[in-house]
Amino acid sequence: MARVIVDVMLKPEILDAQGQAIARALPRLGFSAVASVRQGKRFEVELDGPVDDAALADVRKMAETLLANTVIEDYTVTVERAES
Amino acid sequence: MARVIVDVMLKPEILDAQGQAIARALPRLGFSAVASVRQGKRFEVELDGPVDDAALADVRKMAETLLANTVIEDYTVTVERAES
Repeated sequence: MARVIVDVMLKPEILDAQGQAIARALPRLGFSAVASVRQGKRFEVELDGPVDDAALADVRKMAETLLANTVIEDYTVTVERAES
Repeated sequence: MARVIVDVMLKPEILDAQGQAIARALPRLGFSAVASVRQGKRFEVELDGPVDDAALADVRKMAETLLANTVIEDYTVTVERAES
């Protein structure tokens, strides 16, 4: 089994209200060195077969059609563990 | 500015209903090679200063007190970009 990670983040030009709320809460909790926070989603996808080009193309299509809203979000696909 | 990533995922023994819903939707969309999906959160934290041990300890404390619910969630801290 192989594991592929899909990270989905709001595009930089889209206001991230959740991230801003976190960034604003941090000084109150005693953390002062944080310039900004952005919050997104992480998907751990376990694949049955090997991670070849076809499988990665499938995951990318999955990200585009189901996991991310590409109008407002960017996604990145990373192979975490090729086979075991 | 340095960027630190905090990934927060439900512990393996906790039911991930969102991930299951995604995994169940995939065959309907034509993706058959997926064994399971787990969904979590990703935080991109921009730090003002350098990423030294003290800063990383701070981010870990942040994760424990604000970003993750450690009763049901695990978190990992990764340095994405040390300085620029």
